[in-house]
Amino acid sequence: MPDSPPIRPGMVIGILGGGQLGRMLAVAAAEMGFACHIYCPDQKSPAFAVAAARTIAPYDDEAALAAFAGSVDIVTFEFENIPLATLRSLAEKVPVLPDPRSLEATQDRLVEKQLIAGLGIGVSAFAQVASQSDIYSALARTGRPALLKTRRLGYDGKGQTLIRTGDDPVGAWRSIGEVPAVLEAFVPFEREISVVLARGRDRTMRAYDVAENVHVDGILATSTVPASVPAALADEAIAIAGRIAEALEHVGVLAVEMFVSTDNRKRLLVNEIAPRVHNSGHWTTDGCLCSQFEQHIRAIAGWPLGGAERHDDVVMENLIGDAVAEWPALAAEPGARLHLYGKTETRPGRKMGHVNRISPAGDT
Amino acid sequence: MPDSPPIRPGMVIGILGGGQLGRMLAVAAAEMGFACHIYCPDQKSPAFAVAAARTIAPYDDEAALAAFAGSVDIVTFEFENIPLATLRSLAEKVPVLPDPRSLEATQDRLVEKQLIAGLGIGVSAFAQVASQSDIYSALARTGRPALLKTRRLGYDGKGQTLIRTGDDPVGAWRSIGEVPAVLEAFVPFEREISVVLARGRDRTMRAYDVAENVHVDGILATSTVPASVPAALADEAIAIAGRIAEALEHVGVLAVEMFVSTDNRKRLLVNEIAPRVHNSGHWTTDGCLCSQFEQHIRAIAGWPLGGAERHDDVVMENLIGDAVAEWPALAAEPGARLHLYGKTETRPGRKMGHVNRISPAGDT
Repeated sequence: MPDSPPIRPGMVIGILGGGQLGRMLAVAAAEMGFACHIYCPDQKSPAFAVAAARTIAPYDDEAALAAFAGSVDIVTFEFENIPLATLRSLAEKVPVLPDPRSLEATQDRLVEKQLIAGLGIGVSAFAQVASQSDIYSALARTGRPALLKTRRLGYDGKGQTLIRTGDDPVGAWRSIGEVPAVLEAFVPFEREISVVLARGRDRTMRAYDVAENVHVDGILATSTVPASVPAALADEAIAIAGRIAEALEHVGVLAVEMFVSTDNRKRLLVNEIAPRVHNSGHWTTDGCLCSQFEQHIRAIAGWPLGGAERHDDVVMENLIGDAVAEWPALAAEPGARLHLYGKTETRPGRKMGHVNRISPAGDT
Repeated sequence: MPDSPPIRPGMVIGILGGGQLGRMLAVAAAEMGFACHIYCPDQKSPAFAVAAARTIAPYDDEAALAAFAGSVDIVTFEFENIPLATLRSLAEKVPVLPDPRSLEATQDRLVEKQLIAGLGIGVSAFAQVASQSDIYSALARTGRPALLKTRRLGYDGKGQTLIRTGDDPVGAWRSIGEVPAVLEAFVPFEREISVVLARGRDRTMRAYDVAENVHVDGILATSTVPASVPAALADEAIAIAGRIAEALEHVGVLAVEMFVSTDNRKRLLVNEIAPRVHNSGHWTTDGCLCSQFEQHIRAIAGWPLGGAERHDDVVMENLIGDAVAEWPALAAEPGARLHLYGKTETRPGRKMGHVNRISPAGDT
């Protein structure tokens, strides 16, 4: 599909998924002169409000998918839990980018970790837990504490539990629903960072500056650029993300979350790959001329990638659940840009918006 | 209407007019968490593609206007040629900002010039031409060359003609359609500048840096910030625009175009007032944290105004007619951000998009 003709202004980009990432992709695409058609089962999808067309249907509705494929010039996706069969069905009729392979490799945590390990890239010790009987051998491999995570459909800390010394491993297995899982060693880390990069159809890559991330209760709370890591470590992180993107032959934006280990060697351990625009890249909208959203559209459309240079320092803070009630104060804060997702219902743990706090770029 | 409660995220902003200004306003409003409802008679309106709801109806369709008023929490407009009766009808049912007065004072060139002159602000000599018999006395007042302009419905150089020495004044009068007109002295100017500012419901004002504009064939070609004018002149220009905004009790973004006269006194002569977001403010999207579009939405919504500080130097170039065919080269140009309006048909003189070329802010 990277060989299909470039997408020209006026053409229609189909986006699977109607959350805030789809919404911000649709806005960026509109600014470039494209029309967007959002496909999402949820009729309250925030992305619908900024799209030229919408389809409300389940991801396995073949008739709706066929009609969608017939109405768009290319398809992309905003999150990685789209069923693979959906993408494959669409890919028979219309170009789909990133290629479904990127999704296949990342929507299963075990396959993802095997990919990373296979590239010789640092990853915490892990073991498959296919059944209850696997859990003790897996613990023998990872030690404690260890994180037991479902192989599929986990996000924002969901579908995972920590097994500490003294915890009942079988209870942990039950708490995640006794589904195929992976156990991974809990890595003591001094900080979390991420790389957001884009790879174009022409195989060029552009990486944004490394972000330093803080998670609270498994959900990203803040991303800060520049990250307080040595330049060599930042370069290494970008190189790792680039090798992953190349291994996947990925086209589009891709994000790689990593831990910086607490030991003296400051090893980088890859935690997670997201084959899409990423929350830790939201700072780019106000810190760069070309945001991660425009960059993703450029990549899949076959346009040259935009510059990823940063014109300001940025701290991005997520507004989760009731935190969005602070919007009046945030709207009044100098140097802050408030982004709200138009979600009608506030729920604990739900991402309602974010704020980018800007300051002139220092010397790094 | 400035006393009505602030517009909260999730509420609906109605926008009259569906062109590129409405489109960019709708995008900014969506980023702030609002939904937009666009009202426009033209079913191909570019703004429809980024709006949650749309009404396609004439501006004098009372039933459609009533339904529109009932579906939105506030109404604003993207251009000043909306019939005043439309705004007044809506204003009986729902808050309308800017107040229809701003539109009334600026959609008639004679009333506009009388306002400016009445404030003691520089304006070129002008005279009313209500009928053919007025034209010679008017020319006696302005001298030649002079511009004969329709009082209403002119934009982008339309509805106007130049009367030079030797030209037939009656022929000029016929060429503009023998409609009520104003004749104005053609001012020799060294440059054109504009001020884009916002005035909030709380009467605070924020002005963006002065832009230097070049028109070709009556249509804005480029806006450059910073303008190459002395700081004192820029300050004077901003003060003039502020006095006009205050005189109108304007709420929202307002733009004032001015000439810098060629004589040694470098006088500022106001050419035109636009009670809305303005083409010469398009640079703000990529040069400031808070664009003119977000700023307008903040103002009418009763939010505090955003900062108007500029983080980069910008040259904005309009893509008019076939110039949009250059999009592949522009998309590949480092330091440039391409904005396309999604218009399906390219016509000579039609604004199809613009490009902002960015460079680090110099010392000014």
